[in-house]
Amino acid sequence: MNGDVTTGVHAAWLPPEAFRALGSRRVLVQGAEAGAPAGTVHEEVARACAAYGGRVGRGPGGETGPYDLVLALTGAGSALPEPARAQARSARGTLGDEGFLLARRGGVTVVLADAPAGLLYGLFHVVRLGESAFGGEDGGDGKDGGDGKDDLPAAVHRPALRTRMLDHWDNLDVHPVMGQVERGYAGGSIFWRDGGPRGDLPRVRAYARLLAAVGINAVSVNNVNVHAAETRLLTERLGDVADLADAFRPYGIRLHLSVNFASPVVLGGLPTADPLDGDVRAWWGKAAARVYEAIPDFGGFVVKADSEGQPGPFTYGRSHADGANMLAEALAPFGGEVHWRAFVYDHTQDWRDRSTDRARAAYDHFAPLDGEFAANVVLQVKHGPMDFQTREPVSPVIAAMPATRLAVEFQVTQEYTGQQRHVCYLGPMWSEILGFQPWGGADDGRRTVAALVADPAAGGGLVAVSNVGDDPYWTGHPLAQANLYAFGRLAWAPHADPVALLDEWIDLTFVPLLSRDPAPLRRALHAMMDGSWRTYERYTAPLGVGFMVRPGHHYGPDVDGYEYTPWGTYHYADRDGVGVDRTRATGTGYTGQYPQPWSEVYESQERCPDELLLFFHHVPYGHVLHSGATVVQHIYDTHFAGADEAARTRSHWRELAGAGLVDAALHARVLERLDEQVRCAREWRDQVNAYFLRKSGVPDAHGRHIP
Amino acid sequence: MNGDVTTGVHAAWLPPEAFRALGSRRVLVQGAEAGAPAGTVHEEVARACAAYGGRVGRGPGGETGPYDLVLALTGAGSALPEPARAQARSARGTLGDEGFLLARRGGVTVVLADAPAGLLYGLFHVVRLGESAFGGEDGGDGKDGGDGKDDLPAAVHRPALRTRMLDHWDNLDVHPVMGQVERGYAGGSIFWRDGGPRGDLPRVRAYARLLAAVGINAVSVNNVNVHAAETRLLTERLGDVADLADAFRPYGIRLHLSVNFASPVVLGGLPTADPLDGDVRAWWGKAAARVYEAIPDFGGFVVKADSEGQPGPFTYGRSHADGANMLAEALAPFGGEVHWRAFVYDHTQDWRDRSTDRARAAYDHFAPLDGEFAANVVLQVKHGPMDFQTREPVSPVIAAMPATRLAVEFQVTQEYTGQQRHVCYLGPMWSEILGFQPWGGADDGRRTVAALVADPAAGGGLVAVSNVGDDPYWTGHPLAQANLYAFGRLAWAPHADPVALLDEWIDLTFVPLLSRDPAPLRRALHAMMDGSWRTYERYTAPLGVGFMVRPGHHYGPDVDGYEYTPWGTYHYADRDGVGVDRTRATGTGYTGQYPQPWSEVYESQERCPDELLLFFHHVPYGHVLHSGATVVQHIYDTHFAGADEAARTRSHWRELAGAGLVDAALHARVLERLDEQVRCAREWRDQVNAYFLRKSGVPDAHGRHIP
Repeated sequence: MNGDVTTGVHAAWLPPEAFRALGSRRVLVQGAEAGAPAGTVHEEVARACAAYGGRVGRGPGGETGPYDLVLALTGAGSALPEPARAQARSARGTLGDEGFLLARRGGVTVVLADAPAGLLYGLFHVVRLGESAFGGEDGGDGKDGGDGKDDLPAAVHRPALRTRMLDHWDNLDVHPVMGQVERGYAGGSIFWRDGGPRGDLPRVRAYARLLAAVGINAVSVNNVNVHAAETRLLTERLGDVADLADAFRPYGIRLHLSVNFASPVVLGGLPTADPLDGDVRAWWGKAAARVYEAIPDFGGFVVKADSEGQPGPFTYGRSHADGANMLAEALAPFGGEVHWRAFVYDHTQDWRDRSTDRARAAYDHFAPLDGEFAANVVLQVKHGPMDFQTREPVSPVIAAMPATRLAVEFQVTQEYTGQQRHVCYLGPMWSEILGFQPWGGADDGRRTVAALVADPAAGGGLVAVSNVGDDPYWTGHPLAQANLYAFGRLAWAPHADPVALLDEWIDLTFVPLLSRDPAPLRRALHAMMDGSWRTYERYTAPLGVGFMVRPGHHYGPDVDGYEYTPWGTYHYADRDGVGVDRTRATGTGYTGQYPQPWSEVYESQERCPDELLLFFHHVPYGHVLHSGATVVQHIYDTHFAGADEAARTRSHWRELAGAGLVDAALHARVLERLDEQVRCAREWRDQVNAYFLRKSGVPDAHGRHIP
Repeated sequence: MNGDVTTGVHAAWLPPEAFRALGSRRVLVQGAEAGAPAGTVHEEVARACAAYGGRVGRGPGGETGPYDLVLALTGAGSALPEPARAQARSARGTLGDEGFLLARRGGVTVVLADAPAGLLYGLFHVVRLGESAFGGEDGGDGKDGGDGKDDLPAAVHRPALRTRMLDHWDNLDVHPVMGQVERGYAGGSIFWRDGGPRGDLPRVRAYARLLAAVGINAVSVNNVNVHAAETRLLTERLGDVADLADAFRPYGIRLHLSVNFASPVVLGGLPTADPLDGDVRAWWGKAAARVYEAIPDFGGFVVKADSEGQPGPFTYGRSHADGANMLAEALAPFGGEVHWRAFVYDHTQDWRDRSTDRARAAYDHFAPLDGEFAANVVLQVKHGPMDFQTREPVSPVIAAMPATRLAVEFQVTQEYTGQQRHVCYLGPMWSEILGFQPWGGADDGRRTVAALVADPAAGGGLVAVSNVGDDPYWTGHPLAQANLYAFGRLAWAPHADPVALLDEWIDLTFVPLLSRDPAPLRRALHAMMDGSWRTYERYTAPLGVGFMVRPGHHYGPDVDGYEYTPWGTYHYADRDGVGVDRTRATGTGYTGQYPQPWSEVYESQERCPDELLLFFHHVPYGHVLHSGATVVQHIYDTHFAGADEAARTRSHWRELAGAGLVDAALHARVLERLDEQVRCAREWRDQVNAYFLRKSGVPDAHGRHIP
């Protein structure tokens, strides 16, 4: 394994070799004394230069030029060498908390930031650029500069979204059903073990570094289902939390905690947790003050309330705005925020009742509260109305709350997308969602999901559930690192091309380690990953209907697994047809939660996109799709195709064996998972096809064997 | 709660009040010095007399007559008063190890036994008889005897089966999935807790007493799935096992252990557990010797080998006879026996392959080995070919191994029959099985299942999985005590009427506590329990097809839950029909495992009994049953009827509320479970009916609502 020296685990997208271009230069870091993230920049550069023969100065005193690279705060002003000095003068105050400017003139690459975090992001940008940060692939070494031929015009980089957050669903204790990490597929928690801290702070710091390199600036370190031991992180265990915050701080990442809404009762001994009760509010105020004493840059609270058994304001007849605002009041004096999750639905619903619709729940609960939330409340909305399925429409809540700060929540951990045993690169899915236009072409289509969450006033940013554990490859499946990478980069730049992000990731993770032509590796990884989400979609639940997974663990097929359960996740297949009627005309009325044009598009069997047809409509098996295939033939075709594609994915990887293009241990790990993917994809194919053949009686038009 | 003074738990069928008739008499116990079970008789009598004003003598010295009751070993001979002396002289040597003689003449009731255990069983028989043991319901008190009008002719009682055994599937450690007791629905184990002994030996003794009162003479105290800690019971933890044996011994119950076939490797550090390896055989020999040093009356080993992941002889290319005989050799010098379970099947089978049939497995594995097992091996065969379903045909293995000692295994714990949340009195099912004639009318139908397991040479007795835990009512559902009661009594007297056994149980458990007319209580319990097994059958999987339960925990409906799994438990429902074709003509050939006439009866769709039709045949929904209904209409009708019956069961119980007929706490406990039964029965009704309506498209002929 290509291990990180500090931690003995895989270096992911920050192998020492990725710093070669930087590390062989003469670098000035100016502003390291300004605080944690800037000091980190100096450390990073110093380490790289020590490894690759470069030289680092801290300026302004003593060091002599010339420099190939200047990393500086704009405030340094006259202490900087030219051309940095002039650029700093003009850029100063325009770059913001996290932005940076990159330019190259006269053989000197200049990175400027108004604030330390920006400098850190600028550094990692230079790492991503590699040699091209210095004038080209074949190494502008700066010495022959000055002729302008390798100049780069000054470009300002700012994160599109203010909050770029990862939520960990990590438990302190091993939960008897969910384990140490709920929906975790990469081993135990990197934070917790056996009821207490895991005690490996270098690993936490290495994680923080990886996150900073992709632009993440916030983490939550415990499960949104806050069990007994985890509840006490807010009080007795605060020291453990502060230790983690200390590990994240050097990388510009603010720590958040998931809290138990019932804490005033459970921890405080109060008779109630009613958000309008004075004692309760006072208790939270004091709790927040104690937290900020220990962690001055604490980010805030994450709350899952009144959901799947968690306590919440409904217990006291209060609204979710009441609940969130109470916590917001406690955090406001310290600049903290509340991330209040909109994942509220009835998980004890009666499958016999076709009028109740889980998809409606978040909108029904929250849209009426628009405008009632405090300024430091962020309503955290899952990207779809259900639960991180492979294919869902975009949640109508996102367009329904203009007067509320909204964050959209993704799931990097692959709960429903192969659990890091299947290759499933989610960048294209997230990209589609971020580019979705809730009002269609109205307003020239400028109001995308990305624009909404990025809005300086109303945007709450992007949040995702982490896929990281104490696995030596961080993510179980080594290729699942790409999902974490892409999430961070899309949170910074939502319109980035996900395939290009894959290239970035490949160029950092694999290419620096190679002494040979990386083209075959790059081709193989693109062949395996670019379309892997759609491949996964093909061999699992068809046409947007979702679920069909084994209840509980959610891995592998079980077409009727949730069909007669209280969880609200149905497909209603009978001998004539399949799908959920969510129309206004004859169904649950869910389509009415969308603005135009989607409300009409989804309402119409003719206009509804094929890939969401069964999410919105119950249709006969003979219904003809836009593709020209009938629904049942589409099911057969896609399932045969998807399973075949999984097998081809494995073939691509097998061809890399022994070619020296990837580490042997990593190759073996991926191959073992591909074997499971191929097996499981066939299982999906056969179960789904057999189910629909038995039910519809329609034979495959191509006469293939269906068991 | 009507608590036992020793343990603080429910007294079940041995409340002190059940000893009233006995305890108010003048009793002679002769032979208490002969050993544990006889000493127990004296203790029991002394306690009863202390409570109810009677008097107990130990004879022969000192005490003076006359006696109302004499309990004596036949060997006491001339020391006995008449008429016992004459009866002892003629009966001596004819009663066997466990039999007893009961007579009443001249106002004296006499119980005689050749051996101490018989005396104990005779005592409990007298308890069951109550006043009628002394001449009638209104109390022949013996003083006015001698006129012959209340005489009872001498009757000899012997257990039909030599071995009457309960297996506990109790773990030492709480298993992460299965809990402390695998398939236990009555709390934790009464033997084990947190990896060690539970430490409540009085409770174990109270349990042994209950078992002795129904005739059980063997228990196994740990799960047949022998995990790490449990493996060590054979060696380091032997002292804990000996403590339990000491608690069982006074009640004539021999203790058995489930052992791990891989023990020589796991405990002994040998490189193999090959049953033909000399070192392995020596290891087992020494292990057995150590066990008998600690527990001289140790019963033997119970083994689940090569089944559901357990190790076994297949690992070494050996047969199950090789494996069992090796253990038998180790136990033989000490008189121990091996209970070798025949539950061996492929639990990783491919649902696509319709030729593999789990039902065939036990026969296919074991029938060829007939005659190869040692004399002290008992092959323990589940009563049906699958796994304790509500309805299965009798296992063909039972008729296929004339040269092997066979035990039949029942499941008192209600894994598939309502998990002690539903009232499901299993006596009638067991009675049907025991009365089944594997060769039909041939041999005048004398060869029943009961006769086979009772055969002195070839019979291995009856075994069942216990339903007892540390619940204050012993069995979770208080009415589930009746199953434990009936199992013991049927193992003693297989042809007993299960409804009469219910009366015995009611008369011991409830009636002695009443000062009012017990008729309403008796009527209610019969209405609730007599037909409860068939009620349960009606609202669950139809027509013998089995399963349709939620995978894993096996509670509640999931029609397709096991349909596409490796467990071999399918129904193959499609839009045209349902059922498993197990015929020789077109199916798996399973019917060929039966002798005539069943082989032909089951092979024929026309002759196959309705209740097993879908176990043996795949038929169209329109297939007409002997009952005149089509299969699909039968499904609808029985499911509506079964759910209605569950509701009526609750009504009967509700009517008892406040009538002073049962303890209030017990009433509440049962009512709470009935609420769940009614809910769950409706869930079964609706899921099964909806499933088949969706699939078949056939509407209910009576137009009832199916969701």
